[in-house]
Amino acid sequence: MERWNTGIMVFDGVEVLDFTGPFEVFSRTRTVPGLVSRRSEEHAPFCVFTIGKTTEQVTAVGGLKVIPEFSFETAPPLDLLVVPGGVGTRALLNDSATLDFIREREASAKIVASVCTGALLLAKVGLLRGKRATTHWAALDELALLDPEIRLDREARFIDEGHLITSAGVAAGIDMAFHLVESRCGREVADETANYIEYRRLPGTGR
Amino acid sequence: MERWNTGIMVFDGVEVLDFTGPFEVFSRTRTVPGLVSRRSEEHAPFCVFTIGKTTEQVTAVGGLKVIPEFSFETAPPLDLLVVPGGVGTRALLNDSATLDFIREREASAKIVASVCTGALLLAKVGLLRGKRATTHWAALDELALLDPEIRLDREARFIDEGHLITSAGVAAGIDMAFHLVESRCGREVADETANYIEYRRLPGTGR
Repeated sequence: MERWNTGIMVFDGVEVLDFTGPFEVFSRTRTVPGLVSRRSEEHAPFCVFTIGKTTEQVTAVGGLKVIPEFSFETAPPLDLLVVPGGVGTRALLNDSATLDFIREREASAKIVASVCTGALLLAKVGLLRGKRATTHWAALDELALLDPEIRLDREARFIDEGHLITSAGVAAGIDMAFHLVESRCGREVADETANYIEYRRLPGTGR
Repeated sequence: MERWNTGIMVFDGVEVLDFTGPFEVFSRTRTVPGLVSRRSEEHAPFCVFTIGKTTEQVTAVGGLKVIPEFSFETAPPLDLLVVPGGVGTRALLNDSATLDFIREREASAKIVASVCTGALLLAKVGLLRGKRATTHWAALDELALLDPEIRLDREARFIDEGHLITSAGVAAGIDMAFHLVESRCGREVADETANYIEYRRLPGTGR
């Protein structure tokens, strides 16, 4: 199976679990079950890395300090772009470099997936217009204000529109990631990976 | 409520969700509900930070680069020490600086909590002798070999022995963290925080 370059954005004020949940799921997925396959990348269907505006340290919510693997400029071509949320997204709504990066990379990526208030950034660049979408429960109205033509779903844990996937708040990004693993690699691979990281998947919460 | 200094260890080969799950839960807990209380530390019952052997960058499983907030030497007194797992724990079983740090800090901390194979390090310094404990399902036998007097529980998602808490693999650390929040701050605070980060708690999985 072709390995998908999976870039996860990080920035000052990114919510920790928004980006580390999908990072954990995608980076530990293996198409061959068991412990041994986890010791190498040979059977890894996702090549996962963080992307910052630069490779200078960013500080996540709560003070966690992270060094991005790539900058906007040095990041390789992406198959999957993950846009996490957090209080820091509000400043990015006016950051042209970040909005340009999302716009440009969306055009060539197979899938763009947001977690939590990452959806605000997708809305800001017009990607969610006319689409079903969700975000953190406390940001649903904010999302609607950014683009009244978004068809908000206030109940789903994640919403799969094919090329674009949005998740509800924080921990919902883990369920979204497993959904994506299942779509690409099948139910067995997703369930075996969930068992490996001892995550209890929530069935039937996506749309 | 007194704020608990909560130190979460990080090291090369730490499993991402092992340390970021509890980091997310403890750092977002507020004793006053709602969104506004999350914007400051005023009602935060846990002051959460990472601790490395030094403050040099560590590389977690999957390549996530993290800068520890404190070193073993500079870390303030701890009320709660969280010892995550990951493939990197195996090298630390022979690292006297790490084992000494756990031994010394355990003596003055109110609670020491492991996630996943972090339990191996607790066992190595003799903390689990005669106690009920758990770890990642794939490391249960390894834990028993380190100390045959540990009373293994192969079913529970976390085990609370008062001063010492151990969790099963990876994602189980999130349930352990919420259990600890509930023990300290009550059910309402734990549930409201879970709702804030949209985590569905798994009831009745601890012992």
